[in-house]
Amino acid sequence: MADRHRVVILGGGFGGLSATHKLKHAPVEITLLDRCNYHLFQPLLYQVATGSLSPANIAAPLRQILAGQKNARVLLAEAVHIDAANRRVILSDGAVSYDTLVVATGATHQYFGHDEWEEFAPGLKTVEDATAMRGRILLAFEAAERERDQAKLKAWMTFVIVGGGPTGAELAGALGEIAHDTLSHDFRDIDPSQSQIILVEGADRALPSYPPKLSEAARKMLVKLGVVVRTGAMVTNIQAESVTIKQGDRTESIPTRTVLWAAGVLASPLGRILSKEAGATLDNAGRVVVNPDLTIPGHPEIFVIGDLANFSHQTGKPLPGVAQPAIQQGAYVGKLIQARLRNKQLPPFHYFDKGNLATIGRGAAVADLNWLQISGWPAWLIWVFIHLLYIIEFQNRLLILLQWAWLYITFDRSARLITGKNPLPLDL
Amino acid sequence: MADRHRVVILGGGFGGLSATHKLKHAPVEITLLDRCNYHLFQPLLYQVATGSLSPANIAAPLRQILAGQKNARVLLAEAVHIDAANRRVILSDGAVSYDTLVVATGATHQYFGHDEWEEFAPGLKTVEDATAMRGRILLAFEAAERERDQAKLKAWMTFVIVGGGPTGAELAGALGEIAHDTLSHDFRDIDPSQSQIILVEGADRALPSYPPKLSEAARKMLVKLGVVVRTGAMVTNIQAESVTIKQGDRTESIPTRTVLWAAGVLASPLGRILSKEAGATLDNAGRVVVNPDLTIPGHPEIFVIGDLANFSHQTGKPLPGVAQPAIQQGAYVGKLIQARLRNKQLPPFHYFDKGNLATIGRGAAVADLNWLQISGWPAWLIWVFIHLLYIIEFQNRLLILLQWAWLYITFDRSARLITGKNPLPLDL
Repeated sequence: MADRHRVVILGGGFGGLSATHKLKHAPVEITLLDRCNYHLFQPLLYQVATGSLSPANIAAPLRQILAGQKNARVLLAEAVHIDAANRRVILSDGAVSYDTLVVATGATHQYFGHDEWEEFAPGLKTVEDATAMRGRILLAFEAAERERDQAKLKAWMTFVIVGGGPTGAELAGALGEIAHDTLSHDFRDIDPSQSQIILVEGADRALPSYPPKLSEAARKMLVKLGVVVRTGAMVTNIQAESVTIKQGDRTESIPTRTVLWAAGVLASPLGRILSKEAGATLDNAGRVVVNPDLTIPGHPEIFVIGDLANFSHQTGKPLPGVAQPAIQQGAYVGKLIQARLRNKQLPPFHYFDKGNLATIGRGAAVADLNWLQISGWPAWLIWVFIHLLYIIEFQNRLLILLQWAWLYITFDRSARLITGKNPLPLDL
Repeated sequence: MADRHRVVILGGGFGGLSATHKLKHAPVEITLLDRCNYHLFQPLLYQVATGSLSPANIAAPLRQILAGQKNARVLLAEAVHIDAANRRVILSDGAVSYDTLVVATGATHQYFGHDEWEEFAPGLKTVEDATAMRGRILLAFEAAERERDQAKLKAWMTFVIVGGGPTGAELAGALGEIAHDTLSHDFRDIDPSQSQIILVEGADRALPSYPPKLSEAARKMLVKLGVVVRTGAMVTNIQAESVTIKQGDRTESIPTRTVLWAAGVLASPLGRILSKEAGATLDNAGRVVVNPDLTIPGHPEIFVIGDLANFSHQTGKPLPGVAQPAIQQGAYVGKLIQARLRNKQLPPFHYFDKGNLATIGRGAAVADLNWLQISGWPAWLIWVFIHLLYIIEFQNRLLILLQWAWLYITFDRSARLITGKNPLPLDL
């Protein structure tokens, strides 16, 4: 055991876990390191933020996932530095040596140099982000119920979502349902269906990464849920009680107390460390430009995969920051490590694009399967099926299915808790 | 509507909600005020703290519960003062006037004058308490996995629960299961079943409010789960790395990093305000001594119910701080308010003791139904049935049942997330 090849994997997301699984029967000693003790199914995080699911439904303890994989150990720790020269990962409280390193620490959101916006426009990357966002949305309705001033009331009942990609569109759709259905009988002084939900997107259509036909289908679904879609619009300022939008030459300030941030991805800071310590090249978003085999130049022992990697060899542009590339890259790295142990090589990584899915509310979704583009009910059923399939842990599949069925029938979102320190003072 | 009798109910727990429900068809205008936006089913809070259930499973949004009760409105606010002379409740941001006031703000835990213990020995009254306790328990095992020093390792794997009432016994039982079953394959360097779990109780037996026969049955169940039950033992000090226990003349310091507090109840601070503003009498635990009709002397318009009330007219001592008295008192107050509106009176409140139940792990519980005292499997089935019956919201019943069935079969606790700011630094 002592002289086994040591693989250290940073990050227990889709990429890191996929690499770990692929190495299950390999003669290696794996250390999977993460700051969280669970794997998070990020594609459903917006459902926690909008009260449909509980955090535990979309998170599975890493130790439990890997309980049966004897060559893997889990370390709950934060990697603060990579000492590439000595092949060591420096933790906040110790160090781990590696023979092969897989960096899969993903990305977070960024505010394009306006970090001061974060306070007013929370993003959605972690469980804590999701419960805080849920609290803000619910508190806005609570505040509205007690507000007498008409202008202030309107600001509480106006929700602006910045970014019209899948996360933004899904958030907007869920908010539309909350306002029109879930909360419809809950208040006495306000009518939640009078809420204004505005989705702001810089490109000329929502879901710009989808074919135009599906963007248009998504737009129609959003409008049906009462969402105003503003395309070609840039956010130029966010303050406690307003957001400023520039559309062409026109600048407009929208009074709102709730801005949700679904734009701007910034790669994990470990990219910058790899750049400094191992000479890796970063792109604009801080992603590490990788070789065709997902290593970094000059360091065949360091792989970078998932949202942190910029792999442009196939299409000339980086792969999208979703689960599929990360999963496939993790599996590729697992295979390559084993091939190398047998002194073999593999052809370069090749991404197989299975397609993209986004859901816009109950029974409504768009699916781009490359060979088939559909929207509405059939797309939604595919979405449900795929997401249940990929959720790790059988119990969670059952729980999620039950809650979705319940939501579908009753519109009732039961995980509507305001927890933690109130993210917003009710300063009326 | 404007001249309807105004009932203000402080607290959306068992008592407040029961009173609200009883008034459903009464010609009154109810304002239910709570700091949380949900009703919490506290008897199952320990299952959140030990990773079996998610917070949303045992919490139902107050607005949703009361969506159909048109004469009730919910106010998310904190009552900071009661102006009894002018019949007004002062909020942190406003005021509400009442004709009848029902105070049902319950109790929290206390440290018998040692507030400095709270940092090291968290209690269990809120959702936030439960998720923080869950995090501490899981982090202790994580820290143990990385600890090389044998003495320190032992301290991480020693869990001390202070208080051998139902909450303490249930926590200890669940911890025993976690250590012996749930985590058994999760770690590589430690064996969780080597954990020491110590339940400390001041009385001469665990569950002192139960008949001795059931205490003995509970003790046996705890021992089977690897719990050491120390009775006649007082905690005299709690520090970051140890707890000091006095048993008879013997004082002992037990090295431990995880102390859970399940002792010492302190009534809500509104009791003290009622004492100052309305001349109410308080008992040692800060509870308000109430009249036979649950009002306070000199103020027939102010009712105090549930954990905050000391009602000793029936048995000579206060009713236990559990759900049943609160529910029955809430219903009584609801009926009395309606009787008064018709210029009628009611006989004094009478508590009907349906019995007590506590569960000690999988398939093991004790039930004191007064006419019948049982333990083991049959008691556990009664426990499951009763708890599912009293959980508000049908969806939660299904979800809880499914998760219990899963837990029963697999020992797997899926809600094992460490969330929020790590309650404990991993300072190894």
